[in-house]
Amino acid sequence: MKIWQKETDSSQEVEKFTIGRDPEFDQILAPFDVLGSMAHAKMLCKIGLLTNEENELLQKGLKEIYLEIEKGQFQIQPGVEDVHSQVEFLLTQRFGEVGKKLHSGRSRNDQVLVDLKLYYRAAIRELVIETQELFDLMIELSQKHKTDLMPGYTHTQLAMPSSFGLWFGSIAEGLAEDLALLKVAFDLSNKNPLGSAAGYGSSFPLDRTYTTELLGFGDLHHNVINAQNSRGKTERTIAFALAGLAATLNRLSNDCIQFMNQHFGFISFPDELTTGSSIMPHKKNPDVFELIRAKTNQIQAVPNAITMLLTNTGTGYHRDLQLLKEEIFPAVESLGNCISMSAFMLKSVRVKKEILADKFYKHLFSVEEVNNLVISGLPFRDAYKKVGFAIEKGDFNPDQNSINHTHEGSIGNLCLEEIQIKFDVVIHQFNFEKMDEAFNRLLH
Amino acid sequence: MKIWQKETDSSQEVEKFTIGRDPEFDQILAPFDVLGSMAHAKMLCKIGLLTNEENELLQKGLKEIYLEIEKGQFQIQPGVEDVHSQVEFLLTQRFGEVGKKLHSGRSRNDQVLVDLKLYYRAAIRELVIETQELFDLMIELSQKHKTDLMPGYTHTQLAMPSSFGLWFGSIAEGLAEDLALLKVAFDLSNKNPLGSAAGYGSSFPLDRTYTTELLGFGDLHHNVINAQNSRGKTERTIAFALAGLAATLNRLSNDCIQFMNQHFGFISFPDELTTGSSIMPHKKNPDVFELIRAKTNQIQAVPNAITMLLTNTGTGYHRDLQLLKEEIFPAVESLGNCISMSAFMLKSVRVKKEILADKFYKHLFSVEEVNNLVISGLPFRDAYKKVGFAIEKGDFNPDQNSINHTHEGSIGNLCLEEIQIKFDVVIHQFNFEKMDEAFNRLLH
Amino acid sequence: MKIWQKETDSSQEVEKFTIGRDPEFDQILAPFDVLGSMAHAKMLCKIGLLTNEENELLQKGLKEIYLEIEKGQFQIQPGVEDVHSQVEFLLTQRFGEVGKKLHSGRSRNDQVLVDLKLYYRAAIRELVIETQELFDLMIELSQKHKTDLMPGYTHTQLAMPSSFGLWFGSIAEGLAEDLALLKVAFDLSNKNPLGSAAGYGSSFPLDRTYTTELLGFGDLHHNVINAQNSRGKTERTIAFALAGLAATLNRLSNDCIQFMNQHFGFISFPDELTTGSSIMPHKKNPDVFELIRAKTNQIQAVPNAITMLLTNTGTGYHRDLQLLKEEIFPAVESLGNCISMSAFMLKSVRVKKEILADKFYKHLFSVEEVNNLVISGLPFRDAYKKVGFAIEKGDFNPDQNSINHTHEGSIGNLCLEEIQIKFDVVIHQFNFEKMDEAFNRLLH
Amino acid sequence: MKIWQKETDSSQEVEKFTIGRDPEFDQILAPFDVLGSMAHAKMLCKIGLLTNEENELLQKGLKEIYLEIEKGQFQIQPGVEDVHSQVEFLLTQRFGEVGKKLHSGRSRNDQVLVDLKLYYRAAIRELVIETQELFDLMIELSQKHKTDLMPGYTHTQLAMPSSFGLWFGSIAEGLAEDLALLKVAFDLSNKNPLGSAAGYGSSFPLDRTYTTELLGFGDLHHNVINAQNSRGKTERTIAFALAGLAATLNRLSNDCIQFMNQHFGFISFPDELTTGSSIMPHKKNPDVFELIRAKTNQIQAVPNAITMLLTNTGTGYHRDLQLLKEEIFPAVESLGNCISMSAFMLKSVRVKKEILADKFYKHLFSVEEVNNLVISGLPFRDAYKKVGFAIEKGDFNPDQNSINHTHEGSIGNLCLEEIQIKFDVVIHQFNFEKMDEAFNRLLH
Repeated sequence: MKIWQKETDSSQEVEKFTIGRDPEFDQILAPFDVLGSMAHAKMLCKIGLLTNEENELLQKGLKEIYLEIEKGQFQIQPGVEDVHSQVEFLLTQRFGEVGKKLHSGRSRNDQVLVDLKLYYRAAIRELVIETQELFDLMIELSQKHKTDLMPGYTHTQLAMPSSFGLWFGSIAEGLAEDLALLKVAFDLSNKNPLGSAAGYGSSFPLDRTYTTELLGFGDLHHNVINAQNSRGKTERTIAFALAGLAATLNRLSNDCIQFMNQHFGFISFPDELTTGSSIMPHKKNPDVFELIRAKTNQIQAVPNAITMLLTNTGTGYHRDLQLLKEEIFPAVESLGNCISMSAFMLKSVRVKKEILADKFYKHLFSVEEVNNLVISGLPFRDAYKKVGFAIEKGDFNPDQNSINHTHEGSIGNLCLEEIQIKFDVVIHQFNFEKMDEAFNRLLH
Repeated sequence: MKIWQKETDSSQEVEKFTIGRDPEFDQILAPFDVLGSMAHAKMLCKIGLLTNEENELLQKGLKEIYLEIEKGQFQIQPGVEDVHSQVEFLLTQRFGEVGKKLHSGRSRNDQVLVDLKLYYRAAIRELVIETQELFDLMIELSQKHKTDLMPGYTHTQLAMPSSFGLWFGSIAEGLAEDLALLKVAFDLSNKNPLGSAAGYGSSFPLDRTYTTELLGFGDLHHNVINAQNSRGKTERTIAFALAGLAATLNRLSNDCIQFMNQHFGFISFPDELTTGSSIMPHKKNPDVFELIRAKTNQIQAVPNAITMLLTNTGTGYHRDLQLLKEEIFPAVESLGNCISMSAFMLKSVRVKKEILADKFYKHLFSVEEVNNLVISGLPFRDAYKKVGFAIEKGDFNPDQNSINHTHEGSIGNLCLEEIQIKFDVVIHQFNFEKMDEAFNRLLH
Repeated sequence: MKIWQKETDSSQEVEKFTIGRDPEFDQILAPFDVLGSMAHAKMLCKIGLLTNEENELLQKGLKEIYLEIEKGQFQIQPGVEDVHSQVEFLLTQRFGEVGKKLHSGRSRNDQVLVDLKLYYRAAIRELVIETQELFDLMIELSQKHKTDLMPGYTHTQLAMPSSFGLWFGSIAEGLAEDLALLKVAFDLSNKNPLGSAAGYGSSFPLDRTYTTELLGFGDLHHNVINAQNSRGKTERTIAFALAGLAATLNRLSNDCIQFMNQHFGFISFPDELTTGSSIMPHKKNPDVFELIRAKTNQIQAVPNAITMLLTNTGTGYHRDLQLLKEEIFPAVESLGNCISMSAFMLKSVRVKKEILADKFYKHLFSVEEVNNLVISGLPFRDAYKKVGFAIEKGDFNPDQNSINHTHEGSIGNLCLEEIQIKFDVVIHQFNFEKMDEAFNRLLH
Repeated sequence: MKIWQKETDSSQEVEKFTIGRDPEFDQILAPFDVLGSMAHAKMLCKIGLLTNEENELLQKGLKEIYLEIEKGQFQIQPGVEDVHSQVEFLLTQRFGEVGKKLHSGRSRNDQVLVDLKLYYRAAIRELVIETQELFDLMIELSQKHKTDLMPGYTHTQLAMPSSFGLWFGSIAEGLAEDLALLKVAFDLSNKNPLGSAAGYGSSFPLDRTYTTELLGFGDLHHNVINAQNSRGKTERTIAFALAGLAATLNRLSNDCIQFMNQHFGFISFPDELTTGSSIMPHKKNPDVFELIRAKTNQIQAVPNAITMLLTNTGTGYHRDLQLLKEEIFPAVESLGNCISMSAFMLKSVRVKKEILADKFYKHLFSVEEVNNLVISGLPFRDAYKKVGFAIEKGDFNPDQNSINHTHEGSIGNLCLEEIQIKFDVVIHQFNFEKMDEAFNRLLH
């Protein structure tokens, strides 16, 4: 039995080996390739390498192809090497020789680079939108459950009173802080590499500032070797940002799995969101959270896989870089799914009320009691002794229904507004409108 | 033969196992622990948990200890558990009971957290300073060698003309871009966790905004669980930033090792900076660059090691977190060394002139020639054919001494000013003055 | 523009999320699932939970399905959950109630486990076969080029004379040594987990020794929790073995890329195996080796990704384990491809002769000269001085055409027979016949 | 404030940078360096490069140094570069010129390699001994608690009855299986590299088979380039083996932390082995297990760190390899500590009896009940319906005190003898006696 199938023809074998998964990624890159080409053609026209007529033909043709892509009518035909060739092929087929002129002053290297940067910008925006939905839900749940106490653990041991409001709020603020890495990844994606050619620039008098403006880039990689070096660095930086968010979701899913365990029983979900069995009514398997935990681990492994691809290699393009797509494209999509599935699940979360009223939890309140005595004037050591003595005698019966925490970020003062502002400030900095406006200008 | 030595007493064995390398790290944290305590005491006084007299005694005592640390006179005594206990022990020894009051409203957890945050801020500043030195050198070398051509490679094959100016400039811009991650790491380190206690806040009416201000923090972790969760997240984010810079140095060192190889011979260094042998005069071993390459690989492995420590664990303090110090402290120091050693070496780099004048490199100029013909009016296909034909006939004799690249970031237009601005803008955002001013206010 | 598409129906969203890539992997597992079921049915019959008639019906039905799989006629139908359900569905459709009896004394957990183990055994055998082909080629090339000298490098500096025979031979012996890890991975895959049920065994009087024998397993995981824990451990161990081989290929491809660089020019390949350009005749891009280098890096990142999925989780099945397939299945196939592409390329390698005859390399022979003088009786220090003096005067003119190394494993004594034996001994230990024989008995 | 201190003299800076932590590792390697030199000298004598008198002097001198090392009297003196130079220095100081002759036919590279291999062999033996102690304890605990039931979990949900006997037994068998990787690491360490010189062999007529025998190596790396390539491969393979054992301990410690949580309360430890507080009597912090969990994560990160150091580099010695010691030496020691601390803790474990008698756990027995009805003759579907109906009505009252599992590896049939044999078979294969005997012959 043959486990995997080989091509019988060895040149096909080589082709299959070198092409790999590129066709599926090229399909994703197609709209961005067209937009990049529109900007490049306009620039070639501006510097006199295309006539106005040629440019107008190309703009018209590229717009057509863009619409075909949007309608799902664009396919890389068998025998055509990649998305760039397919676009050039269509243009030449439809408009003749001018289609071939598009490649002047451009190399496959910087063309791919600009496609990737445009894709990453768009993908990061999707992630930000997903994150915002989850963030909003966390704020809402934190507000809703601000008086529902639960135990807080240290060393996986019962330690102090906590609350669901505090727990959900911690995820909200965590997400807000995670955006900072995503912003760095966006900024690095938002730098124009076009004009770097094969990584050493071009003898054509390209106007890179102009394409930067046309594509709505925030900046450009000035130095052309640095532009080339940004391949890999961009992906690694995105991977760091994905990993940061993934870590937050990993912890959240881990908490949920634990709190759904029957010994805890703090949260539950409708039956259709868990799996179980009629003869094992005690089981509500948290499959979705287990898979979020696992997928966020896969995502957290990506920075390392990317680093391994890049390290100990020198300046200049290497074919190795092609495989970056295999690492980062699925990770971006997987994180998007994990964020939206987290929100999907938690929209239906049911929280157990009055957990801490059970005597099982009374020792959680011992530090509270000591502090309360201190605030009421007793010296700390005396307060401590008094509580310790009561516990020892079995006379320790604290009020287990409410606690009075007032400082910033505590159970009684969740600072949700401040956390909301923290989030909004970062969102605002992305300035996604700029890229939309540029694309609109190109397309209309 | 016994490879490693065990304690004979098992309780000592446990103690040795749990303490690990903490004493060496505590020594580093000592000054920050004192500063954190000064702010905490002032806050306790403001909210009425310390009298003015008690606070003044504590401020005086802590200042004394701070000066002892600066003079190298501070030691954690045998039998004292850690730096926090040592400080408390000294205060109590010198001023009596008031020393013990310092711990009110604070847990070991948030005390360690604030120490770490203050240390990371300071350590990141050191790294920024080192980076600035290397950046300045790269700009200087880029300027100095802007007309010194060298080959550019793609696929590790000779491809296009490049220049030393372009190469050094690419490192400069790379470093400028790397700072963005360091800024995120700084911002995360620059958030006050004090008041989060064991991760669930406190029933004392702490004024966390006040300690934020006293310690010159840029912001606070509002939610106390999130503050606790920042342990680990902070280290991971710093590790990402270190890895970003390390990757740039890794590539630089790899380039240097290659260019020092006798087949290339593009750069060389004074004998005292390389190792060799009198009977092998051809050898100039690039040990320092090999070690930079290796150390930057170690640093690039740190994000993964930290992630492994954290993943699949739930909310709340775990003793596991102690080991984060073993990962991040040495990495910070190692990166500092790698940056300064890179600068130290490259200060003495000697660049081979006129490399490309050799006929060996003439095919590098074929694309140049085609482009030049296109610019002078020949259609691209004809230009390509003409050059191809000349090469085939052996008639291809391009001008190998100069090339005319003019666009932004190309050999003839290095954009060093723009790159300098890119760097300066980020540096300015760190606003290190704020933390200095706060410390000065505390200490004087 | 929407970067990735979501389902509109949320229960479909959950299903899509939880199923993931399983259907594609289930197709691969199908034949092994059937074989596992044949053994399980026979065992149920032996312990009296199936009658002889029931068992015979099931054996007949399973054989049919096996043949359908072999002919490519087996498909998991829409709405059917997985391969196990599809097989049960077919059996029930064709033979009635008896189809459902197959599941007695078995859980989905141990059924998947046994499928995976059987697949891994078969996949490892494929890898061994590929490795053997590459090994044979390396031995052949080593023999063929045993007198073709080349430079040896240390610190990426010219150091000593080496030879192509030595280089190819080093890969051969490296591969032989790499097999040891693959053997461990095979042995761990070759342990029967059937009967462990959901990880805690069963109250049925299963005969696990009998299924071990029927499936040709070398051993069983006795303890049922340990059997469950082998999920993940098996994949990690396989990943270690893949990574070991990948590292050898990574180095080989890196060497080839370097030796194909024009400054070295030690090896070359027919044009159809490299990429180039008519106006850049100097370029022979080593794309295949760059991709082998990159893919072997991806493979080397897999152990870490698997570890991340598993670490910090407790005993017992977790849904997280499902994603192990996404890590290990593609890695196994990718390594198979890398091995066969390495062999495919190197079958056509052309080696440059007489490299070391060039005066450029003369200093490589200085240590040789010193040693020769020592052997001829001169004290080492005098010999060293004499050679050093000649070099300094420019009088150093060694014989650059031959060297006389005689010890085991040196240029003049490649020990290819010993290396062949090393390889054969490991191959023999796998004892693949045993699993074939067992399968044949089941199927005929 | 300066965070880390730099040397003021730049050549010292370079020296500090390049030497790194080698002095501490050299101290560990010292005895092995001496043993390697004893074998090398004997071989030089055999092939006529040393006279009998010279050899006897060297043997005498080396034995002296060996004894000094054993007594802790050996120190690398300031200004002496490394352990090899220190040994040569002592020999020359004590016996004159003959001390310098020891280096003939040997390079620093193969000398370090042989030292490392000898150290790794010895270190692996230590680990095997530690593992055996833990294994023995697990077998003992499994036997002792074979009738103490506990819940088994899947998806972190209560699932099936399990037992402490089963749980401890799973660790035992896991350890036995982990030894296979350690054996591969041992075998790779147990191959003689001596005679490979700088990685390209030597023109001296060395007798490598003789040194193989003298040092008790099981085999030799024949090909000298392969011997050099084993630097790094050996460490990576050891790291794989360490990671395998670490994963087993990680799971064990994770289980213990969970089972010590108050909601479970399945196991406990004497107070002196946990940390707590007089006013929080509920807390028994599992610090030791948390640190084992964390340290085993550090160890599991080592294979990746080593791979990063090695990947994408070519054949031949690189200075980068020096840093392998920083990765593997501490990992070996840390794993040794984790194993012995696990055993130390579990020697005192107290197991809660009769856990499953509580009604809380009754649904765990539903599958048992169904199976029992099937065995007693009821068709499966009827049995399932009957149990489901009883559960629904609240009439489900299974016997929660005993279960009747009989198959291999199940609760009632732990197969401890078979597991013991599995362990013993691997231990036997190591054949540590061979290396002891060789060392004894060299030293006496």
